[in-house]
Amino acid sequence: MIDYRRLRIALLGAGAVGSQVARLLIEQRAELADRAGADLELIGIAVRNLDAPRDVDLPKELYTTDAESLIHGADIVVELIGGIEPARSLILESINSGADIVTANKALLATHGSEIYDAAEQVGASVSYEAAVAGAIPIIRPLRDSLAGDRVTRITGIVNGTTNYILDRMDSEGADFAEVLADAQRLGYAEADPTADVEAYDAAQKAAILASLAFHTTVPLDSVHREGITSIDAAMIESARHAGFVIKLVAVTELLQNDGHDAISVRVYPALVPRTHPLASVHGANNAVFVEAEAAGPLMFYGAGAGGVQTASAVLGDIVSAARRHIAGGVGTGESTRANLPILEIGAVTTRYQITLEVTDQPGVLATVAGILSDGGVSVATVEQTVVDGAGTARLVIGTHTAREEDLSSTAQRLAASDVVTRVASVLRVEGE
Amino acid sequence: MIDYRRLRIALLGAGAVGSQVARLLIEQRAELADRAGADLELIGIAVRNLDAPRDVDLPKELYTTDAESLIHGADIVVELIGGIEPARSLILESINSGADIVTANKALLATHGSEIYDAAEQVGASVSYEAAVAGAIPIIRPLRDSLAGDRVTRITGIVNGTTNYILDRMDSEGADFAEVLADAQRLGYAEADPTADVEAYDAAQKAAILASLAFHTTVPLDSVHREGITSIDAAMIESARHAGFVIKLVAVTELLQNDGHDAISVRVYPALVPRTHPLASVHGANNAVFVEAEAAGPLMFYGAGAGGVQTASAVLGDIVSAARRHIAGGVGTGESTRANLPILEIGAVTTRYQITLEVTDQPGVLATVAGILSDGGVSVATVEQTVVDGAGTARLVIGTHTAREEDLSSTAQRLAASDVVTRVASVLRVEGE
Repeated sequence: MIDYRRLRIALLGAGAVGSQVARLLIEQRAELADRAGADLELIGIAVRNLDAPRDVDLPKELYTTDAESLIHGADIVVELIGGIEPARSLILESINSGADIVTANKALLATHGSEIYDAAEQVGASVSYEAAVAGAIPIIRPLRDSLAGDRVTRITGIVNGTTNYILDRMDSEGADFAEVLADAQRLGYAEADPTADVEAYDAAQKAAILASLAFHTTVPLDSVHREGITSIDAAMIESARHAGFVIKLVAVTELLQNDGHDAISVRVYPALVPRTHPLASVHGANNAVFVEAEAAGPLMFYGAGAGGVQTASAVLGDIVSAARRHIAGGVGTGESTRANLPILEIGAVTTRYQITLEVTDQPGVLATVAGILSDGGVSVATVEQTVVDGAGTARLVIGTHTAREEDLSSTAQRLAASDVVTRVASVLRVEGE
Repeated sequence: MIDYRRLRIALLGAGAVGSQVARLLIEQRAELADRAGADLELIGIAVRNLDAPRDVDLPKELYTTDAESLIHGADIVVELIGGIEPARSLILESINSGADIVTANKALLATHGSEIYDAAEQVGASVSYEAAVAGAIPIIRPLRDSLAGDRVTRITGIVNGTTNYILDRMDSEGADFAEVLADAQRLGYAEADPTADVEAYDAAQKAAILASLAFHTTVPLDSVHREGITSIDAAMIESARHAGFVIKLVAVTELLQNDGHDAISVRVYPALVPRTHPLASVHGANNAVFVEAEAAGPLMFYGAGAGGVQTASAVLGDIVSAARRHIAGGVGTGESTRANLPILEIGAVTTRYQITLEVTDQPGVLATVAGILSDGGVSVATVEQTVVDGAGTARLVIGTHTAREEDLSSTAQRLAASDVVTRVASVLRVEGE
C-alpha cells in the first residue's frame, strides 16, 4: 500500500448527484487514491437539513449544516447545491481560502462564470465543471484541452434530456406534446414544473457555457436566443418526417462573419434536423454534442445527459484531475476568454427555413405567397401544396434557401397579414445540413 | 498585445501530420499564444532528407537533419517520425534534457510505452499522445482525465479507418474484399502494402494503448489477440446482414472475472455488430470509440480517424496543454499503471458466436451437428438451414448462446472433422449486444 498524501474534499449538497459522489468517494477510496496519486478524504457534506431523507446511506457524522466551516481547510470543494446563492458565495469563499473548485452548476456558471474564473485565476485555483453540460459526456475537457489548438467553427448539441425524450416519443408514437409531457412527468423524466426544460432555459445555460469555451468569449445568458418546444405539435412532427427531418431541441453556437469580422451566434430552439445526421439518431433522454472544427472536422460526443450516478462520474473525473494538479503543484489554468468576439442578435443568423401556411384554396394564392417571399428577400427551394379539408383551405409547406433571420421574420409577418393566408402554422429552422 | 513567455517547440518529422502541425503553428501563432498563455515558437523540423518534396511550403531554414541538436534547448518535443527507432531514442533523450513530449506514435507506445512513461515520471515531464488513437477524436484525454473517477468496464472501438472503409463498402455494395481493397488503394485509403491495416496490426497497437489507459495496466502488444479481415467475403457480409448484423473490425478490451479476481481481455477481430448499435452506423473511413463505464454508462466518441490535418488537430491540442502546464509549473502526471491486472488469453473470453457450416444435405445431419455442439459445451440459440445447390450440400447458420472461446474453438475443430460437415465456412463473434 502506497502512503499517499491526503487531500481534503468538502462536498456541498447531498442531492441525486451529491449523494452518489459521496458514496463513490467512500466506496472507491483506495482505487481513487491510485488514480489520483492522493488519498481523497471526504471531510464532510454540507446540507440545509440534517434530517432530510437521503437516497444513499452515508455515515451520519459527515453531514453538517455549517458549510462555511466545512470549506475552510478543504483542498477541493465540490459544489452540487445548484442555483445562484449560496452556491456563488461559497465558491468564492472557497477559492479565497485556497481550494480548487469542482461544480456542476450550469445556472451559476452561465450567469456568474466570469466572476468565478477571475477570482480563481487571481489565486491560481482551478475551476472544473465537466458535469455542468451533458452530464456524463466528456465535452468540457475536449473543448478546453483537446481542441485547444484547433478552431471550432460550430457546435450543435442536444443538451437537454427531458425535451429530447419528449420529442423522440412524439416522433416515434405520433403523440401530442401535452400527452407525452404528462407521461414524462409520471415516469420522472420531467419535473412537476417543467418550465426550465420545455422553455429551454436549461439548454440556454448550457449553450452559453459551450459557446464561451469554444469561442474564448464571455457569453452573457441574455445574449442566448431561446425558444422552447411547447408549440411543437404532432402535425409539425409528421410534416417534418414527410420532408426527411426530425424535430430536435438544438443548442447551436457558430462562428460567423459580420462586416468582415469574426462574430458568434448562440441560440437554442427546436429545429429540423435531417434524418441522416448523427444527431437525428439520439434517442430517449440521451444527449449528444456535435462539434465542427477547422482541422479536426466533425466530431460527436454521445451519452447519458443526466442521472445522479452518471453525472457523478463526471464530477469524480474533475475531482481526480484537481487532485493530480494539487499533487503535481503549479497553478490552475483559468478560462481563456481572450478572443471576446461580438455576439450577434438572432436577426443576423442565416439558416434554411420550413414555413407551413394555411391558405385559402383558390387560384393565384401560390403566386401571391411567392411574391411576398420574393419581395422579402427570401428565396424558395421547395413548395408542397396539400388540400386540408373540403372547406376551401389548403396547406402550403415552403422550404426556403438560406435566408437571413430578420428578412424571414418580417416576411413571415407580411405573410400572416396577407388576405390569402389563413394562418402561419409554423416556421422552423433547418440545422445540421 | 500581451507579452507572453516564449516556449520552444521542436518538431521531429515532416510527413502528412508533421507538415500540417508546422503550418498551423506558424499560421495561428498569435491565436495559439492566447490559448496557451505562451508564445509557441517552432524552432526547427528534423527530417532525414532536406531535399525531399513536402506537402506544405514552409520556411527552408526550419529544416535540419540534426535532430539531436534540435531537441536540446526545446521545451516541447513533438515526435511525428513514427516507428521505433530513432523515435524512441530521441524521445528518451528529449525527456532527459527536460522537454515535455507530444507524440502520435502508436507503434512505439504500444511496445515501449512503459519505458517512456517511467523516464518521464522520473524527471516530471509529461507525455501526451491524443493523436496516437483515433486521429482527431479526443479519446485519450477523456479516458485519462474525464473518466479517472469512474470504472471503465468495456471499450469497443472502430479504430482503423482503412478496414472500416473496406468493410463498409463491402456491406453497402455487396462487393468482395480484393475488389474493394484494390479500389481503396487506388483512392489512397489503403497503402500499397496494406498488411498493417488489413491484418489489424495497427488496430492491435491502438487496442493495447486504450486497454492500458482504461485499466491502468501495462498491456504488452503480444498479449493482444489479433485477427485481420482478409478472410471476410461477400457471402459472410450478406449472411450477417440477413441476421441483422454488420461486420466491423473491432478493438475490444473489457474487464472480466477470472477465478473471482479482476482480469482484462484485449482483442482485435472482425465481429458481428447488431445494426441497431451506434457503432454499426460508423461509415467510410471514420472511427468511433464506444466506452462503457460503471457510473457514466455508455458513451461514444466519433470522428475522423486519420488524415494529416485532422490528426494535426489532436497534436496541437496536446502542444497547447503541455504549454499551459509548462507555464503553470508543476510536474507532468505520469501514466497510472497501478492496477496491473492480469491479461487473459483469448480462450478465456466469452461471447456469442455465429457459425456457418456447409453440410451434406441428408437426414440426421442437424442432430449430429447439434450433438457435437452440445458435447462441446456450446449451447445453440438459433439455427437456419438453407440448401445451397442441387448437389446435396446445405448451409447451416448457427447462432450460439454465450460460450467460452476455448470451448467454441475445440468444438469448431470437431465440427470440421465430422463426416457430415463439408466445410466450416466461418466462425464469427458477436460484439455490442
